[in-house]
Amino acid sequence: MNKKAVVLLSGGLDSAVTLAVARRGGFNCHCLIFDYGQRHNKEIGSAKKVAQDLGSKYKLVKIELPWKGSSLLDEKVKLTESLQTKGRNEIPATYVPARNIIFLSCALSYAEAIGAKAIYIGAHQQDYSGYPDCRKEFFHAMKPVIAYGTRSGVQKNKIKILTPLLHKRKAEIIKIGNSLGVDFGLTWSCYRGLSVPCGKCDSCYYRKKGFIEAGLEDPLLNKPRRREKK
Amino acid sequence: MNKKAVVLLSGGLDSAVTLAVARRGGFNCHCLIFDYGQRHNKEIGSAKKVAQDLGSKYKLVKIELPWKGSSLLDEKVKLTESLQTKGRNEIPATYVPARNIIFLSCALSYAEAIGAKAIYIGAHQQDYSGYPDCRKEFFHAMKPVIAYGTRSGVQKNKIKILTPLLHKRKAEIIKIGNSLGVDFGLTWSCYRGLSVPCGKCDSCYYRKKGFIEAGLEDPLLNKPRRREKK
Repeated sequence: MNKKAVVLLSGGLDSAVTLAVARRGGFNCHCLIFDYGQRHNKEIGSAKKVAQDLGSKYKLVKIELPWKGSSLLDEKVKLTESLQTKGRNEIPATYVPARNIIFLSCALSYAEAIGAKAIYIGAHQQDYSGYPDCRKEFFHAMKPVIAYGTRSGVQKNKIKILTPLLHKRKAEIIKIGNSLGVDFGLTWSCYRGLSVPCGKCDSCYYRKKGFIEAGLEDPLLNKPRRREKK
Repeated sequence: MNKKAVVLLSGGLDSAVTLAVARRGGFNCHCLIFDYGQRHNKEIGSAKKVAQDLGSKYKLVKIELPWKGSSLLDEKVKLTESLQTKGRNEIPATYVPARNIIFLSCALSYAEAIGAKAIYIGAHQQDYSGYPDCRKEFFHAMKPVIAYGTRSGVQKNKIKILTPLLHKRKAEIIKIGNSLGVDFGLTWSCYRGLSVPCGKCDSCYYRKKGFIEAGLEDPLLNKPRRREKK
């Protein structure tokens, strides 16, 4: 495999499936995992396990952003279940300002440094349409930024941002991952990041709904667990 | 002053002048200083002094990028004087992949978190046209990203990226800064980041040329210095 791709890996199930899809596409995958002060930093350990399980290299990017602006960055703010209750047209409190722009800009830097020609990101519109940086319009808008703002763009050898899950529903994503051998027991979705998934936050809600609709069991919920401290 | 602006501050003279311009424009300036592993991290201390001298708040963003891809990030790579010798159509080895995209994405996040409506960046095309992310086309391309990828864009209250120096030459920038009371003795431009400017790198070269053309003395070169270790 000579084709290199940078894959953004959060530790959640969407990015795990995205990595599996990128590998199936013949890419030599270089995962990027972010430690950006998220309250559910437990996902970082999950991301590392997912990368290893799928035979891929990873690098950890540490970003200290000295501001909050999101319930995911601020433990003092209550995690509300906004998408479930408020509907899809409101931006939830878990929105982290410009997060995917930050992630993609780092991925662009890494892709240029290692000569990768593709960046995979597991965003999808359907379940999380409250996040503006998960929309196709946003990913489309990144193209001219790459064309004009990077060396690869100047050299007419543009890096592509690939979003294979963009129009998929959670249940479909789970089915695709299942068929590609993704071990969902290694992934972590809950925003609370405690020892077991809270079952109430938006992320738990959509994960649960997805597994039910896919007709599959979530191995994370049936996993034998050691006692963990938090 | 109720209007808030985020100002990217490197410690160099361009961003110092940009801060002075933003303040003259009536903005309450919140500076962002980046520690991204640059070999000339001496500029971080200069940036803090510049912010203080111009009566502005600042925050330090720490980003650990575990890759190189630039002579500014890798002390093993020789700092060549590429712009001076090779001309303007080649991207210099000091190009840091996607640096301004990373900086602007963090600035966007900060601006959303504090409710700022403007981001100032001191990029200019004329002297540094070798950097793709200093071109007007790049800054123009960021507009749809803000419109589609951020909360402020969704709320039709878009954050603007302002580049007041974009079409200015170094000498003009120095004159503007001089008229606005910028203390250039506090700024740092040299890529080598030793105790005194090397006088040879691209950054020193353009600074020197600019002061000569502006008919002014560079106070940094005539500053009484204490012995410093490196």
